[in-house]
Amino acid sequence: MTLRLHSMFIPRRILEDKLKQFLVDDVGQGDVTAAAVIPSNLPVRAEIVAKENGLVAGVEEAVVLAEYLGLKTKVKIADRQKVKNTQVILEISGDAQAILCVERTMLNLLSRMSGIATKTRMLREKLQKANSRARIAATRKSAPGLLYFDKRAVALGGGDSHRLHLDDMILIKDNHLAIVGSIEEAIKKAKTNASFSKKIEVEVTSFGDALKAAEAGADIVMLDNFSAKQAKKACKALRESGFCNLILEVSGGINGENLLEYAESQVDIISLGELTHNVKALDLSLEIIKKN
Amino acid sequence: MTLRLHSMFIPRRILEDKLKQFLVDDVGQGDVTAAAVIPSNLPVRAEIVAKENGLVAGVEEAVVLAEYLGLKTKVKIADRQKVKNTQVILEISGDAQAILCVERTMLNLLSRMSGIATKTRMLREKLQKANSRARIAATRKSAPGLLYFDKRAVALGGGDSHRLHLDDMILIKDNHLAIVGSIEEAIKKAKTNASFSKKIEVEVTSFGDALKAAEAGADIVMLDNFSAKQAKKACKALRESGFCNLILEVSGGINGENLLEYAESQVDIISLGELTHNVKALDLSLEIIKKN
Amino acid sequence: MTLRLHSMFIPRRILEDKLKQFLVDDVGQGDVTAAAVIPSNLPVRAEIVAKENGLVAGVEEAVVLAEYLGLKTKVKIADRQKVKNTQVILEISGDAQAILCVERTMLNLLSRMSGIATKTRMLREKLQKANSRARIAATRKSAPGLLYFDKRAVALGGGDSHRLHLDDMILIKDNHLAIVGSIEEAIKKAKTNASFSKKIEVEVTSFGDALKAAEAGADIVMLDNFSAKQAKKACKALRESGFCNLILEVSGGINGENLLEYAESQVDIISLGELTHNVKALDLSLEIIKKN
Amino acid sequence: MTLRLHSMFIPRRILEDKLKQFLVDDVGQGDVTAAAVIPSNLPVRAEIVAKENGLVAGVEEAVVLAEYLGLKTKVKIADRQKVKNTQVILEISGDAQAILCVERTMLNLLSRMSGIATKTRMLREKLQKANSRARIAATRKSAPGLLYFDKRAVALGGGDSHRLHLDDMILIKDNHLAIVGSIEEAIKKAKTNASFSKKIEVEVTSFGDALKAAEAGADIVMLDNFSAKQAKKACKALRESGFCNLILEVSGGINGENLLEYAESQVDIISLGELTHNVKALDLSLEIIKKN
Amino acid sequence: MTLRLHSMFIPRRILEDKLKQFLVDDVGQGDVTAAAVIPSNLPVRAEIVAKENGLVAGVEEAVVLAEYLGLKTKVKIADRQKVKNTQVILEISGDAQAILCVERTMLNLLSRMSGIATKTRMLREKLQKANSRARIAATRKSAPGLLYFDKRAVALGGGDSHRLHLDDMILIKDNHLAIVGSIEEAIKKAKTNASFSKKIEVEVTSFGDALKAAEAGADIVMLDNFSAKQAKKACKALRESGFCNLILEVSGGINGENLLEYAESQVDIISLGELTHNVKALDLSLEIIKKN
Amino acid sequence: MTLRLHSMFIPRRILEDKLKQFLVDDVGQGDVTAAAVIPSNLPVRAEIVAKENGLVAGVEEAVVLAEYLGLKTKVKIADRQKVKNTQVILEISGDAQAILCVERTMLNLLSRMSGIATKTRMLREKLQKANSRARIAATRKSAPGLLYFDKRAVALGGGDSHRLHLDDMILIKDNHLAIVGSIEEAIKKAKTNASFSKKIEVEVTSFGDALKAAEAGADIVMLDNFSAKQAKKACKALRESGFCNLILEVSGGINGENLLEYAESQVDIISLGELTHNVKALDLSLEIIKKN
Repeated sequence: MTLRLHSMFIPRRILEDKLKQFLVDDVGQGDVTAAAVIPSNLPVRAEIVAKENGLVAGVEEAVVLAEYLGLKTKVKIADRQKVKNTQVILEISGDAQAILCVERTMLNLLSRMSGIATKTRMLREKLQKANSRARIAATRKSAPGLLYFDKRAVALGGGDSHRLHLDDMILIKDNHLAIVGSIEEAIKKAKTNASFSKKIEVEVTSFGDALKAAEAGADIVMLDNFSAKQAKKACKALRESGFCNLILEVSGGINGENLLEYAESQVDIISLGELTHNVKALDLSLEIIKKN
Repeated sequence: MTLRLHSMFIPRRILEDKLKQFLVDDVGQGDVTAAAVIPSNLPVRAEIVAKENGLVAGVEEAVVLAEYLGLKTKVKIADRQKVKNTQVILEISGDAQAILCVERTMLNLLSRMSGIATKTRMLREKLQKANSRARIAATRKSAPGLLYFDKRAVALGGGDSHRLHLDDMILIKDNHLAIVGSIEEAIKKAKTNASFSKKIEVEVTSFGDALKAAEAGADIVMLDNFSAKQAKKACKALRESGFCNLILEVSGGINGENLLEYAESQVDIISLGELTHNVKALDLSLEIIKKN
Repeated sequence: MTLRLHSMFIPRRILEDKLKQFLVDDVGQGDVTAAAVIPSNLPVRAEIVAKENGLVAGVEEAVVLAEYLGLKTKVKIADRQKVKNTQVILEISGDAQAILCVERTMLNLLSRMSGIATKTRMLREKLQKANSRARIAATRKSAPGLLYFDKRAVALGGGDSHRLHLDDMILIKDNHLAIVGSIEEAIKKAKTNASFSKKIEVEVTSFGDALKAAEAGADIVMLDNFSAKQAKKACKALRESGFCNLILEVSGGINGENLLEYAESQVDIISLGELTHNVKALDLSLEIIKKN
Repeated sequence: MTLRLHSMFIPRRILEDKLKQFLVDDVGQGDVTAAAVIPSNLPVRAEIVAKENGLVAGVEEAVVLAEYLGLKTKVKIADRQKVKNTQVILEISGDAQAILCVERTMLNLLSRMSGIATKTRMLREKLQKANSRARIAATRKSAPGLLYFDKRAVALGGGDSHRLHLDDMILIKDNHLAIVGSIEEAIKKAKTNASFSKKIEVEVTSFGDALKAAEAGADIVMLDNFSAKQAKKACKALRESGFCNLILEVSGGINGENLLEYAESQVDIISLGELTHNVKALDLSLEIIKKN
Repeated sequence: MTLRLHSMFIPRRILEDKLKQFLVDDVGQGDVTAAAVIPSNLPVRAEIVAKENGLVAGVEEAVVLAEYLGLKTKVKIADRQKVKNTQVILEISGDAQAILCVERTMLNLLSRMSGIATKTRMLREKLQKANSRARIAATRKSAPGLLYFDKRAVALGGGDSHRLHLDDMILIKDNHLAIVGSIEEAIKKAKTNASFSKKIEVEVTSFGDALKAAEAGADIVMLDNFSAKQAKKACKALRESGFCNLILEVSGGINGENLLEYAESQVDIISLGELTHNVKALDLSLEIIKKN
Repeated sequence: MTLRLHSMFIPRRILEDKLKQFLVDDVGQGDVTAAAVIPSNLPVRAEIVAKENGLVAGVEEAVVLAEYLGLKTKVKIADRQKVKNTQVILEISGDAQAILCVERTMLNLLSRMSGIATKTRMLREKLQKANSRARIAATRKSAPGLLYFDKRAVALGGGDSHRLHLDDMILIKDNHLAIVGSIEEAIKKAKTNASFSKKIEVEVTSFGDALKAAEAGADIVMLDNFSAKQAKKACKALRESGFCNLILEVSGGINGENLLEYAESQVDIISLGELTHNVKALDLSLEIIKKN
């Protein structure tokens, strides 16, 4: 199975706008330190260096952000590549005040995305070693406002982005069912009211409900908070009931420890909120290289 | 020592704007699931429930976001209060489609802020038990675009927000010094060029440099990546050199394990990037309460 | 077959923001006529009246826009209802200057949406009378910036919104195929690289390609610019080849005249660019009711 | 009579911002099709081709949008020129993903503007052939949010943009008069309260009112919903009453059929809501040219 | 001659948006003083007091801004009324933190607008006492970004707003003429290319050019940098040449000292850049009233 | 004492955004004059010329704005340099329509900033001649929305920017004290609740209060509305009481006339609201240079 590509394409200028907002959030009325102690128009060179091992994600964003500020860049380790402690990921050169002003914003993004990608890749490799065909997927449990970047980091780590918006799939969850009353009714409404272009996924908490959802025509059934054992049994039974094209997702309480237990089932998708909800940023730093 | 208040005041309408952006990021062209399966104008009641113990932060934001959408709220556990697993933090009532649409955005914010506050409080209590007078402080290592919310969560946890913008203190770091050359020169420039309204902090990596910074008139000296032992020695020596009003900050490599070792020194501020860079969101869920 | 609900749910406050932009586009530095000739704070009553028969769409938007400006409204004919020439659709009361300022923006939106809905409903009724099970669907050929409103008008007319964004389905068109080279390769890439949450649709120009797409696992096949006869034959052959769950869409060159010919085939979706690309706004006017 | 120039000049960077918003509306979290099936950084060439005859408008906008995305363009048929079916209007070359992502947004704008310009030009030529000196003019009945583009398309078609904003002329309409009571009073208020820099136009429904408006000092009188015969008679009488510099506008119920009847009167301006309210987009397509 | 009304009407919600931006510019990540020293939810009362005599302008804006923040207001001296030193203009009550946060933004706007209105009124009264029929008018020399507020302040002071945008009149100035070459050619182009809805004004520097402009059909002629004597002579000659409806404007080098000399001529409009370019803010302060 | 550098550094692209807003405010739907009378794509050369002596500020902004529009520039007199009447400050070349469109916005900014800088420099030179070590400082009394530009102009004139935001220093003023009750309590709250990174300033109206503030640990004491004599006495007494590092600021009622009286005291900072609240824009004009 080859590496998956990025799962979204967004034009560079639109990306610039998103990145600019991060910078604006930090800059305020100006970087008073750079203004006070650093000469204007002084060209320098800097390196972003890894301080631990990991998988790199967000270099493209860092390059766009740097170039947006008129800086030049040289990528040493690209998105989706592994980096080792002390290795240089990106060289940046240009105006010293600009580099110092953007330093923290750039590192915050790159280290968060790399942290997410590193964990995603680690879990994915676990599955691959166990010869599982299941995919690791993200949820919508991102940091507020960071759906695009968190999802992209998961994709760069080899995971599946799952829904990108509330507008791109029907996902009927426990709270919808609490209101509608029955799985059959909910799916019927979805089929009648929603566009044919959307898949329909239903979150269930029992095998019985999974069967109901499959029979009512769900494209995807999410087994929520099933133990690995329950999930295995449910998947097997569903497949044996003839639902071969049904996509099966497990979610809830899955982590690096128990991942392989879930992978033993005939599940297609293993989604983990903690990919984006419990992020350990990869440790990176930016070093100005002494002038000579 | 009493609990510190929130460290910033931002008018509600400006806060609404920030929160709206988070919602827009998720909604896209609309919540197709709510539209397809949930009736319009159906009043329901929901509860945000803790699924683990922690310190609550972000309830005020959740309330503003809910009311922004025309929902009513009842706070059961307020910001800065502890919550136990299974306890209800917030009740929300109103239009079912609106609640389902905002559910994930609201939980993402509240669980991130509560996660940050919980860790901050835990470290702060450690210091208090050890009778340390040092303050726990955040850094600018927030998630991109979330400086306001991450800083506020730290404040709600009892920590110090540190700089809010690049515009609100002079902080001369290693990279500035790499360009300027000497600590004395950098501080002199800061004093000449920056507004009198700004404090001047210098990051140093040796006791010698700390002394230089103090003598050159820094308001704050940050001992960067000092071992606890080195920090203790340096603080003592600086105090004995007569720098009694100098604020001493330690930063770099400090965590829950070694915090108390650092607290033994005469340091004023202990800042930890991981407060906001390595966030485990507090586990929360929103439950629609069955209609009867 | 009951009327379909709206296909997207967007919170009112986010809708207000979109509507406000339309108003800003028209107002400039202010409505100089209202300011010069109309007294401030003068309460009046106005009616939006149909000047031809049609289906109403956009009343909800008109109400939100009016209330956003502090006006009161009374809906006489709601979205998805038919209106006859001279009937009143909406009563508005409040500040005269505000009503006059918003008049044109409100009418422009309401008449465009009603025009789209009227045509959609007319085509849909044609299909219903012919006992066709096919759905009328929109394309992305909206007026620039108006995807949300154009799609919603189609939905209110009983049509299917189709894709809402470039992010919500894989739709492999002629231009993608011109680059990738083969349908099989394109679908394989889509399956590998895109999220499991997306359906995969392929646009084809021959029966042979339709078969290839179906065999390669497309969820939807769009027969592009097929004559009604060709479409009928292709659908039949595909169904007989066992692709029963495959969704079949026809598009290109379809209009009110030839619609029923296409409906004779076993097609699921009939999409028409002209629903939103060739819009005749419904003729409406706003009348200030004389004070007595 | 030579072709009129564009009626507004807007700096390119401000235009880019408007165009970007259209793209953002369509892109969402990214073009998942381009991302999944098209290689990154693949240079291709594309052509925008007419599929029917018409007058081109919006090429400048298309070029700005393309260049905004880093694409190169070559204009084959410029704004205000006629295009024949199958002719190429614009060549675009550059990154394949970028071209595919912007394709629909670009076509939607170009085909709408060309549709508007084509109709405007057709009516204008009708007038010219009949040796009428009257000008075709737009109204404010544009698509919501598209005032700039709709007005510019009219101008490119040889029409008059009329008011660009609510702030750029005093136009006293029926609803203003319903409140103020009399034409004389309304004009008097306008003269007293509005800036000398604004013209004053009054919409009237009878010859008597037209005379009142002219006598009270209106710069322009709009004969609203006059039959061609009534208009002719009114214009003649007004001119004979000595109002030679008074600008006379007819509006309401005018279309391609009856245009020339109106043109027989001594009217200066013939304005038609349907220029922008009843738009048939010019049929265009973008074709990726096979690589060799 | 009665007081003129405001010259533009802008809906309140759009005004709120403009005002919010001013507040955001000042607040940054929050008002740290109010947050640190003022209790939350403490109701207080405050008064905005004049510290010198003047004409009030901007109270409506202050009220909208206050109410936007949830505060209550009571207007003691309304827009366009005179205020004396020590008089209270506006009472505000509500949350203490909110009042303190908005204090400076509100005063900055109100005192600038009142300063502009005070000067405008003073000049207007001078003209009235001298029985001049000329109007005082503003130019586009506002503070950057403040066209709306500066123009409105002039209008509240009884002046004419002149152009509100670059889009609302043709004003051919020296620099246009330097390019086009001749006044006749410039006016001819304007008549051919611009909308009939725009007036045409030409700035001239000699009587000869004024005559050329009038003969070529300008609606308004601006005598630029004419001495009062030259202006008087030119106006007389133009009127005697039969240009009775031609609007005559003088501009350049006019101030409170020489205003009446210019008023002696048959000029219609006297425009002064210094109304908005040389603003002395009216001295105001906000006082929290002691609680009892 | 050498010239102070600018006090803030803001990335160019973020500056462009601010400048663009000013342009948008003026342009509306387009510059109808340039469009109607000036040919497209006509290269011309223009000069910005001083019409009085002064200190230049805002050239960097003018250059960024010009280049943003694709124009070329050549700085003849840079920021912080003196300009004499008739001297050229900036040459601009490029598209004639673009230059004419931006002319007024550019002049409005440059002349306001230069006006502020000129006054600041004049006062600063007065202090220097008198051998005072006091610094001239701005307040937050800027024009609404112009904090960044007004502060920067002060800095370019050699003044101190003072607070840039409400978030960057604790400044306890009369209104805070009216609520809190005592200076000691307010300072205690500030020390407990605010970040260590903020200085604490207190505004006082008597020597007694100044002493209280100093003793309670204020970093800065602002003597508000003290006469020069009172200020001198208070400063002396505070210094003699041992508060050598305390920063002393005087504010209120200070102007060019009495400045030197205040400078005789041992004050550090002399702040004047009128620097930005009572601005006389430097008289500048833009001249198109005749083509040859």
